[in-house]
Amino acid sequence: MKLTIIIIGAEILLGQVTDTNSGEIARALGPKGWEVIEVITVDDNADAIRTAVERALRQSDLVITTGGLGPTKDDITKKTLAELFGMEMIYDNRVLENIEEVFSKRGLELNPLTKDQAWVPNGCRIIQNQLGTAPIMWFERDGKVLISMPGVPFETVGMLEREVVKDICEHFNSDKEFLHHTLLVSRITESALAERLTAFEENLPENVHLAYLPVPGYIRLRLDGTFKKGDELGKREYGVLCTSLCQLVGENLLYDGEATPAEILLSKLRDRHLTLATAESCTGGNIAHTVTEIAGASEVYMGSVISYSNDVKHRVLGVRLADLEQHGAVSEPVVRQMAEGAARVISTDCAVATSGIAGPGGGTPDKPVGTVWIAARCNDRLESRLLHLPGSRHRIIDRATTEALLLLLSIL
Amino acid sequence: MKLTIIIIGAEILLGQVTDTNSGEIARALGPKGWEVIEVITVDDNADAIRTAVERALRQSDLVITTGGLGPTKDDITKKTLAELFGMEMIYDNRVLENIEEVFSKRGLELNPLTKDQAWVPNGCRIIQNQLGTAPIMWFERDGKVLISMPGVPFETVGMLEREVVKDICEHFNSDKEFLHHTLLVSRITESALAERLTAFEENLPENVHLAYLPVPGYIRLRLDGTFKKGDELGKREYGVLCTSLCQLVGENLLYDGEATPAEILLSKLRDRHLTLATAESCTGGNIAHTVTEIAGASEVYMGSVISYSNDVKHRVLGVRLADLEQHGAVSEPVVRQMAEGAARVISTDCAVATSGIAGPGGGTPDKPVGTVWIAARCNDRLESRLLHLPGSRHRIIDRATTEALLLLLSIL
Repeated sequence: MKLTIIIIGAEILLGQVTDTNSGEIARALGPKGWEVIEVITVDDNADAIRTAVERALRQSDLVITTGGLGPTKDDITKKTLAELFGMEMIYDNRVLENIEEVFSKRGLELNPLTKDQAWVPNGCRIIQNQLGTAPIMWFERDGKVLISMPGVPFETVGMLEREVVKDICEHFNSDKEFLHHTLLVSRITESALAERLTAFEENLPENVHLAYLPVPGYIRLRLDGTFKKGDELGKREYGVLCTSLCQLVGENLLYDGEATPAEILLSKLRDRHLTLATAESCTGGNIAHTVTEIAGASEVYMGSVISYSNDVKHRVLGVRLADLEQHGAVSEPVVRQMAEGAARVISTDCAVATSGIAGPGGGTPDKPVGTVWIAARCNDRLESRLLHLPGSRHRIIDRATTEALLLLLSIL
Repeated sequence: MKLTIIIIGAEILLGQVTDTNSGEIARALGPKGWEVIEVITVDDNADAIRTAVERALRQSDLVITTGGLGPTKDDITKKTLAELFGMEMIYDNRVLENIEEVFSKRGLELNPLTKDQAWVPNGCRIIQNQLGTAPIMWFERDGKVLISMPGVPFETVGMLEREVVKDICEHFNSDKEFLHHTLLVSRITESALAERLTAFEENLPENVHLAYLPVPGYIRLRLDGTFKKGDELGKREYGVLCTSLCQLVGENLLYDGEATPAEILLSKLRDRHLTLATAESCTGGNIAHTVTEIAGASEVYMGSVISYSNDVKHRVLGVRLADLEQHGAVSEPVVRQMAEGAARVISTDCAVATSGIAGPGGGTPDKPVGTVWIAARCNDRLESRLLHLPGSRHRIIDRATTEALLLLLSIL
């Protein structure tokens, strides 16, 4: 079944906010048989919203809009939708009660503008927004459904989980199932991998599709299959294809499944009862942050020393002054001592360390921007590697983070 | 002038990758007078691409597509565009030379699939992609322009800066200018602020528009103006409106301009020759990461101790064991000692510290998930604050990071 998502908001068209709602909706509904055929991003403008909604309703079974529901004047989605579905606005006291509850939970005082959010189109079904003040609205026309959700990602994601996905599944009865299988592949270019998989790809049945998804440091390879519900034979054949693909990837397989390097690392460390610390210079805490974004990280991850200055490298991590002077902070002896120092100071089995030049300033002819030394330590093993990373400061930090995690994974 | 952006890629519709290219394009071209009227995200599918391109060309002066240019089989943008513009494919040796150069810079070996990227539509103008292997293509029809760019954000952003924005400006001669002015506003709800600004907003001229942009922890308020080139009177009036808005915001003004709390903090610390350290528990390095993402952070920021375990809080940061036992890690005495400890260990003037429960596990009736203590220290001043944050682990970490930076800003 087909789904079109409409993202409403000038702030997104202006590039001031990155839309994450469409991805959240796709990830929540994809496994339930919904194919997102288009995402349309438009301004808080009645004409633009109307045109997008009409088109979306023509081409899909379900339309989800997000945004344009706030109490301020640039938010006109609700009025436009009411006109489009030929409904009057009425004041809904249950919505007001919900708004009052949300405000009282946050310890805030209600004002007239917020109370106006209880005006809703008469004839749509209201799903109370337990996480915010903008009501969620469910419209139906000619067997099609449009759901208007808030723009705040936390509210949209939370209400998808709590209510909206369930309601959609109950309303529609799909006869199709979608299967996705992801492999993470490393130490090979996308094109060399594609060459190896040419024959496999050419012989795929019509309903199975192979997609390449390069990310910095490795490649995500995804096999997508579309099946009629109950097509057990088809799904078994799909399973065989997944196994073949895995075998073809061979020694380049980093992980069989969908996970980030940090997730793979945490899970392996947990299984082996090992603990982790980091010592970061150029990555400035991004490795620690990447690891601690994962729930349950505290079982494995103990802490870090971020040693941006040489003084901290020496005093806190115990890097020898002579090595800092002779080789510079961005050097193999320093990064190795940082990894050892982190494991000693934080008292862990494993540690990763980084020292490099993230730019845009600070490069020299000898060590240009993008020069990064990384080290990984696990008990008596200690490995280090020199990277030459292209791109922006952001990209260098990100890539060095991934490579440091992959280096530790490779010696576990 | 009107711009439509088309993002091509199944991985984005599936929610596996978040599109950041459209925002980058909008931010690069907005100040040059380009209004993004729509972003269309479609599958790597010839029909979908064709329909989107035809519609985009009808409604706008310029169309930029990104994605679908890789060497693998699911990338069919180039072929579809050639058909659409009625061009044959030819092999372009200058593109091949560029590909060879990019590969040799990366120390990689060229394979036949990558060489195929030198096939281009005969009749479009090629802009050599200095950062990758997919050539950038410039098509023209009926006075309109379509530019096909790669999907890899690093390549798209880099080539926008190096070449594409310049080429667009040379080709088109806009008679309009857009001005944007942003104020950061704190310690007030969006609706209370909207109430205060009702009269101001109602009296705005037609060509000036006020937009609210709530972000966790504060509100971004943006005044947008559209002017004919050379309309100096209009622009002066706009300047007066900016000043009035600033006065109306009054004591709630956090910053006059577009900056993140970390950027404001770094700039203030730099001006006052103060140095910064962090001691993070629940934010797990995110404060350090947020600060060090900013180029030049090393002038001010010296380092951090991320003390995920109590052992590290005590041994490295010097938090008293008695306080950890009596009050728990998530408590006012502990977070204050963490801030003091960070400033002492890292040897800085200022420090921020966090200790809380980011969830989803670890909450208790006394200290539910979202309970976060933050502290900020600047020389002899030390402030602490208790937060009760709603939402996911990610949201709690993010919000605690912002609040910690704002707390230090408030005592500077």
